[in-house]
Formats: sequence, C-alpha cells, structure tokens
Amino acid sequence: MADLANRLEIEDLQENLKVVQELLQRHELSVDAPSVHDPSPATGDDGRSKDMAELRAKIERLHPADIAFVLESLPLPERLVVWDLVKADRDGEILLEVSDAVRESLIASMDSQELVAAAETLEADELADLAPDLPEDVIQDVIRSLPLEEREQLRAAMSYADGTVGALMDFDMVTVREDVTLEAVTRYLRRLDELPGHTDQLFVVDRDQNLKGALPLERLIVSDLEFEVDRVMVPELITFNPEDKADDAAQAFERYDLVSAPVVDAAGKLVARLTVDVVVDYIRDSSAEQVLAEAGLSEEEDIFATVWASFKNRWAWLAVNLITAFIASRVIGAFEGSIEKLVALAALMPIVAGIGGNSGNQTTTMIVRALALGQLQPPYWRKLLKKELGVAMLNGLVWGGILGALAWYLYDSKALGAVMTLAMTLNLVLAAFMGVAIPYVRQKVGKDPAIGSSVLITACTDSGGFFIFLGLATLFLL
Amino acid sequence: MADLANRLEIEDLQENLKVVQELLQRHELSVDAPSVHDPSPATGDDGRSKDMAELRAKIERLHPADIAFVLESLPLPERLVVWDLVKADRDGEILLEVSDAVRESLIASMDSQELVAAAETLEADELADLAPDLPEDVIQDVIRSLPLEEREQLRAAMSYADGTVGALMDFDMVTVREDVTLEAVTRYLRRLDELPGHTDQLFVVDRDQNLKGALPLERLIVSDLEFEVDRVMVPELITFNPEDKADDAAQAFERYDLVSAPVVDAAGKLVARLTVDVVVDYIRDSSAEQVLAEAGLSEEEDIFATVWASFKNRWAWLAVNLITAFIASRVIGAFEGSIEKLVALAALMPIVAGIGGNSGNQTTTMIVRALALGQLQPPYWRKLLKKELGVAMLNGLVWGGILGALAWYLYDSKALGAVMTLAMTLNLVLAAFMGVAIPYVRQKVGKDPAIGSSVLITACTDSGGFFIFLGLATLFLL
Repeated sequence: MADLANRLEIEDLQENLKVVQELLQRHELSVDAPSVHDPSPATGDDGRSKDMAELRAKIERLHPADIAFVLESLPLPERLVVWDLVKADRDGEILLEVSDAVRESLIASMDSQELVAAAETLEADELADLAPDLPEDVIQDVIRSLPLEEREQLRAAMSYADGTVGALMDFDMVTVREDVTLEAVTRYLRRLDELPGHTDQLFVVDRDQNLKGALPLERLIVSDLEFEVDRVMVPELITFNPEDKADDAAQAFERYDLVSAPVVDAAGKLVARLTVDVVVDYIRDSSAEQVLAEAGLSEEEDIFATVWASFKNRWAWLAVNLITAFIASRVIGAFEGSIEKLVALAALMPIVAGIGGNSGNQTTTMIVRALALGQLQPPYWRKLLKKELGVAMLNGLVWGGILGALAWYLYDSKALGAVMTLAMTLNLVLAAFMGVAIPYVRQKVGKDPAIGSSVLITACTDSGGFFIFLGLATLFLL
Repeated sequence: MADLANRLEIEDLQENLKVVQELLQRHELSVDAPSVHDPSPATGDDGRSKDMAELRAKIERLHPADIAFVLESLPLPERLVVWDLVKADRDGEILLEVSDAVRESLIASMDSQELVAAAETLEADELADLAPDLPEDVIQDVIRSLPLEEREQLRAAMSYADGTVGALMDFDMVTVREDVTLEAVTRYLRRLDELPGHTDQLFVVDRDQNLKGALPLERLIVSDLEFEVDRVMVPELITFNPEDKADDAAQAFERYDLVSAPVVDAAGKLVARLTVDVVVDYIRDSSAEQVLAEAGLSEEEDIFATVWASFKNRWAWLAVNLITAFIASRVIGAFEGSIEKLVALAALMPIVAGIGGNSGNQTTTMIVRALALGQLQPPYWRKLLKKELGVAMLNGLVWGGILGALAWYLYDSKALGAVMTLAMTLNLVLAAFMGVAIPYVRQKVGKDPAIGSSVLITACTDSGGFFIFLGLATLFLL
C-alpha cells in the first residue's frame, strides 16, 4: 500500500510557522485585543471564519512540540489567538513543551476550569513538572481527582528538587518476574496493546518489587520463547536513585549510550525509570541555562516579553556589574593626582585591565569544564596553577611586550613602555592566579564553580589592573 | 540465580580514577619518562609488576568510556602508562571516546602498526570520525584492508562535512521487506543473534532499498505473527538526508523523542541511520564548544597541556581583544586634553563603557538563542528592536540615574552627574542597537550569529562609551 515513506522534513517547522502567520494575517485579526482562551470558533463574516477553520485544521495536524514551537515564535496577541484554536484535550501536553516564560503567558490566559481540564490529561510525572506554574487551587482540584496510586506518584515526583533524577523520572515501566517464560511475557505484552514510549527493556522484579535485572526487547525477540526470563535477562544494570544528581545521570546516559534505566530506592526496590528523551531535554535546558546565566539573564526570556519583564530578568546582573565597575572607578579615583600629571595613563589603563579579564576567563572556563566532567583531581591543582602561571608569563612577555613598544612609540617614553609591559605581565599573573583560585574555592565551599566566576574574575582584574598599572606608574614615572 | 541487580553506581567513575592513581603511585612510576605504547607487561621487581598486573586487571574491567575518562583525567606521563596497559583490541573504541586534545596525545605515542591495528577494529562510520587525526599512510593502509562494501561506506561517511547528518550517521540498520510475515521477520532476527545497539525499529524497504516505513520492535512483539509487515509498519517517518544540518537533526530528535531515524538519499533510498546516542554526544560537544568559543578557546583544551600548547589555543582571542582595547585607548587619547582639565572623567569613563558591554551582551545572547531555535521570524525584528531600545532607556534612567547621583555627590558637580546619566543612557541605547544589529547582519550574510558577537558588541560599547562620555563632557563641562 505504502508508497515512498512519507517524509516529515525538518524544515517543515519554518513552513508551519509561515502558514500560521499567513492565515493570521489574512484573517486580519485585531492584534491589540488578546482574547480569552476559549475553543469555540471565531464569529465574524464568512471569509474570516473560513481562514480560522483552515488555521484550526492546520494546528490539529501538528505535533504538540510543533505547536509549542509556533506559540513560542509568535508575539503575545497572535500567540493567544492560536492558543484559542488548540483543542482543549491537547492543552496539557503543549504546556509541557513550551518554554517557562511562554508557559506563564499561556497559563495567565486560562481560567481555573480550563487549567484543571488540561492538567487532568497528564500523567503524574508530567503533572509534577507543570505544578510549580499552576495556581494552588488548580493543583488541589487535580490532586483530588487522581486515583490513589497516581496521587502517590505525584507526591513522590514533586518531592524531589530540580536537578535530581527524581524530578526527571517517570512511572511508565513494564515489569516482569524472573521465573516466567518468554512465551508468557510475550502473551502479557500483547494484552497491553501498546508499550510506553522508550521501552527498550522490561524490568525484572521479584514479588516485593526488588529489581533483579532487565530484559531488553531485542533479547526477547531473538531468544527461544521456552526460556525463562532469568536465563536471558541482563543482571548487571546501571541504576539511579531518585536523589542522584541529574547531571551525573545525564553523563551516565551519554557515556553508556542508554535509552532507559531503572530508578531504585535505597532498599533496591524499583520505583520509576529514566528515559533518554527526558535526559536530552535536560541536557539542552541546562546548557542553555548556562549560556543565559553567563550573560546575566536570570531565566530564559520570551523574546516578545514586555520591556518591564525584560528589565526584571536582567537587572540583577547589571547591578552587580555596576558595583564592581564602581569599585574599579574608586581605585582610579585614588590615583587622580598621577593621571593629572601624566594623562597618557588614562588612555592606557583600560588595555591592562581588559586583557587581564579575558585571559582570566579563559583559565576559569577551562577549569570549570574539567570540574563539571569530574576530571580535575585534588593532586593536580598545584600542577595546573603552575601551568597557568607559565601561560600568563608567556602572554605577558608577548602582549605586554607589543603594547609596551606601542606605548613607547606613541608617547615617546621608554619608561612608560616598560611600566606598561610590567603591569600587563603582573595583571596576567594575577588573572591566572584568580582564574584558578576562584573555581577552586567555590568548589571547596560547595558552590557551583560555573556561576558568577566570570564576574568575580573581571572584578579582580579590573580593579587589580588599574591598581597595578597606576601604582607602578606613580612609583616609577612621577 | 541473580541476587539484587548489580548496581553500577555513577560515583564509581571517581572511584575508578582514585584506584588507578593509587596503583600508579604505589608502583612509583618514573613520572618523567613517557614510555612507548606497548602492551607488553612492565618489567621490574616483583612488587612493581604485581601492582602493574592489578592495574591492568582493573583497566580490563572498565567500560571503554570509563577508560577514556581516566585517561583524560591523568597528566601525560601517567596517561601514557595507563594507555600502555590497555589491550590493543580496545585501543580503537577508546580513541573514539576521548576528547580531541587527549586523542592527539595518545596517537602521538603510537606507531603506524599499532594505529592500523586499532583502526581495523572499528566500523566504517567510526573510522570516519577518527580519520582526521590519523597519519595519511595509516588511513591508506586501513582502507586497503577493508572489504568493498565498508570501503564504500567509509568513503560516504568521510565525504560529509562536520556538522551534517552524514558525519553522524552509521550503517548498522536492520531492514525487512513489507510483504513478509512477522513470523518470518522474527525467524530472521533470531539468526542475527544480536541486534545493533539502539535498534528500536527495523526499516522496511523494497527491492531497490527505497524506504517504505518502519517496524518498531514493540509492534513486532505485540502484533499477531501471521500479519504481514505492511499491515503493522509505521508508514509516516521522520527521515533525514546526509546533507541535513546536524543541529536540525538534533532538534528533531529532541522534539519528537526519537531513538533512531532513517537517513535517505535524494531518491528516497535508505542509506544509513541516525541514533540518539550519537545525537546526545553531538549536543554535548556543540554546547561545550559554544561555551569554550565564547571564552576564546579555539578548541577543547587538555587541562594537562603544555604551556606552549595552551598559549597557541588562546592567543588568537587575546590578540583580537588587544586590538579592540587599543582602538578604545586611542579614542581616550583623542580626549587627553579634556581629561587633563577634569581628571574625574578618567575614573568615571570605565563605568559607562562596562555597563554598555554587559547590557549589549544580554540582548545578543537572547537573540542568538532565538535564532538558533529558528524562532525569530523576519516580521518581528523591528518589534524586537523597539523593545530592546525601550529596555535600554529604562536601564539608562535607573542605572544612569543612580550613577549620575553618585558622581554628583563624589565630585560635587551637578553638571558632571547629568553628563554621566546622559552618557550611560546613550551608550545603553547604542548597546541595544548593536546588540540587535550584529546578530541580524551576521545572520543575513550567512555567518553563525553566535561566534564573535560578544567581541564585536564589547568593541562598540567600549569605544562608543568612551567617545560618548568624553565627548559630552568636552561639550558641556569644559
């Protein structure tokens, strides 16, 4: 029957978005009046409702992740028009897919009843993800409507902090006993109709849910059906605890190429499973968070956010930078007498400070990455510091030498050139030392060495660079 | 038989590393004499060779990815001692796992014969990954030793550039015809003994290898064995071309929660497949590269690299920064007369420049991310620019106001405070404009908007900030 397999091209994403935009424009929707989320068809003249029907049909054919993409790519008024057209029974899964900022904007447009209806379409682990964004009364309503088992699962999933395996796990695992035949297992699976997504293996447990091993689907297929499970199962398994760090789990998935893995409690009882799709999302999200945090964005920003929302998302970082810049400014202020006498210092000092900051950040970035991978062992810090100081000296010689020569040429002062070279070298050494020391100390006191290291380094190399350069100049030139 | 499933804890990684380090230390290996890669046992007194045997046994029990981790975490001399102990037939897979910088150090310690032997243990797609790091004569030797089919596959895999699906795909797919029964499929699979890793589905093809659909293993298990393949197969599939961008493929894997996907040529013929484990590695690598590139490290650095190797890896970025800092310095130089008259300007000007750089980078980071996700459509650039200018005005009012008041208080000059506020606001507006314009232009001319945007912004806001502040001061204060 089937012709050539229907290719779902990846460029379709952009295509989908364009079609939606065109239909929205043709419909000449009033862009300034966000409407309430309500799945009833738009009223209006015939042309309009025809476009609307076409848009609705288009949306219905899309995968939830693709609708999420379209919603994230539209400004708020258009976003809410499209959101209105989404069938109520898909609201839940789409809310799970969109980014935090966009989710807030969608939830704000829905009333309690709609939210409860959306939440009720989700499974316990998905609900746990959505819960922090929902109003308290909606959560209570949903919890009351859940069967006992799911209520327990929801409570379990919600009790684990972000960044743990517990926050990522799901409860869709298929379990079998070790003393049954593969024939019986196959019969059992046929009755299930469909296996949960990412079921590459069944988990083998005893009567008390203690994990005994795993039965990969491919072994089930290629083995003799008369065999019992314990003869073909894999007894050695990578398992996780709900309290394990999600980062470590992600590394294990990457390292051992896992598709799914069991999650067991301290007593070895199977409680949940972790699947690669969730791990991939986690890896993406946490690397995006790192990039955003380094630029000082507290959370992922809806590109169509209001000016005020953007200001709130960015102010903390700017305030910190203002404080460190102010301190550096006071350092310069202490040398105003010297600058008055030799104004060339004012022009040259930002070079000394800037190069130190860049070099220090290179050191820290490399170390933070090695720490994140667990590859920097206590015996090697000293070795590393020695190497970084060596690189700093070499950089000082090269770049300090070039800049010193330039300063000499520009201001016709050999002494100024020498001070420039010396100051750059010393600031690069300071940068190397702080570049190693800051992540070392942060790690020692149990803080994430990635966060804020860059501000700290730059603060040291700015104030330090100004102090070293202006101090040396005051000593030797005036 | 099986007790509680053998938990392979993730903390074991650190444990492994510690054990290896202890054994190395006990063996009192001469740390300064890197030995040639040679799997013959170390000679020496009995205690030594006992430790060595223990170390060898320890290493033999480790997963290749874990050996790679240990190798990456050891300084070069110790690294080469451990590398010596690795059995020759595992060299290939371990070389695939280690980071580029460490791979170079290992390959440098091996002779051609060892390299050929290592390469011959790999499959065509793996070989293609390793090939760029191997000497030409080794590659030629290996190619000659390959059977014709694999030689073709290797040629195919090597012909695709980094960052394409072709560079990530493998050839381990199991194919079936659509007109056979599931019974026959099962019989066929049993003869295979073992399925390739990450086989969650079989690909259905016709006589000419045209892709018709996919048969998920779980459907094979739960369906009636008398059915023919075309009755249970999935005809709609996400497929990729070898030329597709790896980034897009990674997004599709994430979006649609894929485990494997077929790769077809332009005519619809199945040529290879893409699996989630490779996609996860790709996502990790490319996000790491981004973080490293932003700090100006050209490639991932071996933390135990020599001073010289580190210098080479970092110099380009420092040189660029030196040039932009020098230009900013010349801008200041043009206003030396003003600074001489009002030395407070020297102390205040770095604040104006610094805040502009930080704010501009926030804007660009957000836009680069939206571009990477394909969420920023042409009609919305103008809207975005308007919003960013609004945020800049607000930031200017708030932070410029605070700093203006501080300057007024410190230098007892209302006019200086007013110039400070105005300069900060203007530089923030410049930062917002450049923060939008730079990724826009880079995207328009087909360059990656992520790379180098941060240097460009900082260059504009530094020179621009100095110019605006000193220029306004010269106009209004002197």
